[in-house]
Amino acid sequence: MSNEIPYKIYLEESEIPTSWYNIRSDMKNKPAPLLNPGTGQPLTLEELSPIFCEELCKQELDNDTKYIPIPDEIIDFYKMYRPAPLVRAYFLEKALDTPAKIYYKFEGNNTSGSHKLNSAIAQAYYAKKQGLKGVTTETGAGQWGTALSMACVYFGLDCKVYMVKISYEQKPFRREVMRVYGADVTPSPSDTTNIGRKILEEFPGTTGSLGCAISEAVEVATQNEGYRYVLGSVLNQVLLHQSIIGLESKAAMDKYGIKPDIIIGCAGGGSNLGGLIAPFMGEKLRGEADYDIVAVEPASCPSFTRGKFAYDFCDTGMICPLAKMYTLGSGFIPSANHAGGLRFHGMSTILSQLYHDGYMRAVSAKQTDVFEAAELFARSEGTLPAPESSHAIKAAIDEALKCKETGEEKTILFGLTGTGYFDLKGYQSFNDGEMTDYIPTDEELEKGFASLPQVAE
Amino acid sequence: MSNEIPYKIYLEESEIPTSWYNIRSDMKNKPAPLLNPGTGQPLTLEELSPIFCEELCKQELDNDTKYIPIPDEIIDFYKMYRPAPLVRAYFLEKALDTPAKIYYKFEGNNTSGSHKLNSAIAQAYYAKKQGLKGVTTETGAGQWGTALSMACVYFGLDCKVYMVKISYEQKPFRREVMRVYGADVTPSPSDTTNIGRKILEEFPGTTGSLGCAISEAVEVATQNEGYRYVLGSVLNQVLLHQSIIGLESKAAMDKYGIKPDIIIGCAGGGSNLGGLIAPFMGEKLRGEADYDIVAVEPASCPSFTRGKFAYDFCDTGMICPLAKMYTLGSGFIPSANHAGGLRFHGMSTILSQLYHDGYMRAVSAKQTDVFEAAELFARSEGTLPAPESSHAIKAAIDEALKCKETGEEKTILFGLTGTGYFDLKGYQSFNDGEMTDYIPTDEELEKGFASLPQVAE
Repeated sequence: MSNEIPYKIYLEESEIPTSWYNIRSDMKNKPAPLLNPGTGQPLTLEELSPIFCEELCKQELDNDTKYIPIPDEIIDFYKMYRPAPLVRAYFLEKALDTPAKIYYKFEGNNTSGSHKLNSAIAQAYYAKKQGLKGVTTETGAGQWGTALSMACVYFGLDCKVYMVKISYEQKPFRREVMRVYGADVTPSPSDTTNIGRKILEEFPGTTGSLGCAISEAVEVATQNEGYRYVLGSVLNQVLLHQSIIGLESKAAMDKYGIKPDIIIGCAGGGSNLGGLIAPFMGEKLRGEADYDIVAVEPASCPSFTRGKFAYDFCDTGMICPLAKMYTLGSGFIPSANHAGGLRFHGMSTILSQLYHDGYMRAVSAKQTDVFEAAELFARSEGTLPAPESSHAIKAAIDEALKCKETGEEKTILFGLTGTGYFDLKGYQSFNDGEMTDYIPTDEELEKGFASLPQVAE
Repeated sequence: MSNEIPYKIYLEESEIPTSWYNIRSDMKNKPAPLLNPGTGQPLTLEELSPIFCEELCKQELDNDTKYIPIPDEIIDFYKMYRPAPLVRAYFLEKALDTPAKIYYKFEGNNTSGSHKLNSAIAQAYYAKKQGLKGVTTETGAGQWGTALSMACVYFGLDCKVYMVKISYEQKPFRREVMRVYGADVTPSPSDTTNIGRKILEEFPGTTGSLGCAISEAVEVATQNEGYRYVLGSVLNQVLLHQSIIGLESKAAMDKYGIKPDIIIGCAGGGSNLGGLIAPFMGEKLRGEADYDIVAVEPASCPSFTRGKFAYDFCDTGMICPLAKMYTLGSGFIPSANHAGGLRFHGMSTILSQLYHDGYMRAVSAKQTDVFEAAELFARSEGTLPAPESSHAIKAAIDEALKCKETGEEKTILFGLTGTGYFDLKGYQSFNDGEMTDYIPTDEELEKGFASLPQVAE
């Protein structure tokens, strides 16, 4: 193994980026605006402000400012777990016997176990700065809820998390982590909200859904003085905060004169992918460089590769704004055997526009292939990856094996968004040979598309 | 917050120590030798070799060599997760409002979640080098088993783990992590060994014990061609490998001209404490420097603070060699409500001798106080600590609060051995207010001491 480039490239703390990069500023075709589902008109700052913190609403609507300074208080917190290492995957390269050079940006070295903390701390900061008492959110598997809990306790904010009831019961450890960080975790549906009580009355035995949890979190945020709702993916503001992933990656690569040929990220709502590729995509948009940029999504929830580019609700409850995105329809629900995360039916509007305009490509992966890649990665690189991240691993391995065939020494960069320490049910099912693959039929997709709203653009 | 010293001090990969430091070489009073329980005579290389790898036996018996070179293959693996950061606990200092300067060496940034990997990879390497097929071990909570699995898969060694049956059933996720790394995990007692079958026949409903799991692992190692038994704590060889913790800590501190006044480590079998303090204790033994060195143990399993310095069995099954150590007697079993790890009845013979000779002191902590410290740490420093590590946190906080009273600006170094991601039942019990404290009565301790063997020294 060559050791010219270290296994892990750590930037100095003084090299943590001091501004986020707003990719929208370099897009010729801006992402389509969020629409008010009632009026069909673009949402204004006034309409967004009762739901989200004011500064975050401004970031959400800002298509022009190129660099947005990161407040010192956030940079202080970032130093708790950043800079995140850029790792040269020497061990994986050896295991694959590939001439490709593989790098990954590892965002899992914190207790939330993922990149979600990058935006959670920003959102908590702006809530605190606005003088709010607290924030509300929903969580499914619990990654975002954990990140938000960690961020809120740091700023002394109240954190109310509505956790899908079945996850609350089946993932007690995620729930307990949030409680360690002082969050108030409520199984949803609950009797703490009107919508929760209504659903419980109609469906007494329900185990909940993300749509319902969103509705409860939004109700609590809008009905209680001093609270706002926060969201961990999809939104423009989230991609802005996550640009720190790509900015750090690029700074680390520049330091060693490394230029990636291929950049790969897993894609659910798009927060990690959008963050990782941001500065590279910026160069591509400005015509300064070219990169092969690849989104990887589950074959069981294929919004990019088989979805429609259309206005749709962001939530299954159909109470959130409409966003123009690649979507399977808010009525699409991934198969119950889906263990690999990335279950969102839609996609970031920014990434959707970039994909639509041909700046990136997308591939899908079957979950058994994803877990196989995850296990190979764990055994060679040491770290047990999150199933979500493992979609990117799978695609990176495929590209590295292509290089092995052609003899090309391509440089591959992928995002390792997090660790799989709370996802061992999926690994167990894989190791027991019980994991199956689900690929929706065209007919099943049509049912999801039937839920798309009619929007006159 | 002052930023002269960064939040995290990372050594360069080229600065990873290239030799382990053998603290025994500087001890005037060497640790007492292991005795053959049958003959009462010191164990020889010939007697140890059928159980342990030959090179490890040599390390076990070597009281003289000061520095033992770390083979390149092990250093390569270390680069997967080392150098481990030395963290300045600015956030904790702020939360405590103390003039003390607190540092911790964080060993949890790897999937095994603890420092155990440092010795696991060394033991796997020597097994591979000896041409063995595989190794066997026992595991309780699963931390050591996970580390060993990761090490074995790296060298292509078979890894047979006997996991206490109740842990196997109640901690399925730890078991699954080991399976991801290719280990063969068997609930103990099992029908794969004579001793297992015998115990199952006598006690059909038993949920197993560590003593029984050790017996099964040793039987498989000694009855199968090409296998040896490995152990993750207590032994001299383990402390030798773990010296890398202290060597890296000292190198990082030296780089910034920092000299600790107090060095604190949690103590179960002593692997972490012995590793962390090694080079500092060396200076103290040689009269070159003085440090206040503190072992922290659970009040519920107080081998240093309330045990006897005597020869005892290392295992509850009384099949292992006799070691002279601070012990509660192999018949001592911590209370069932004990959630914080560090359950071993004895202590490393090296540390026992050093403690006996007055080179270090020991304190004990109640588990509710430990979890309270753990939660304060998590909320200020971000990382969710392992309950074991939190014993050191508790003592470090106590020392920092003393500084607050006196106004002293002492420099405190403690070992954060790992993360608590698989220990959330303990946190749950604490958060639910259901955790209680257990402190054995003198009468209960007497019962344990009654199990001490009669050894003519």
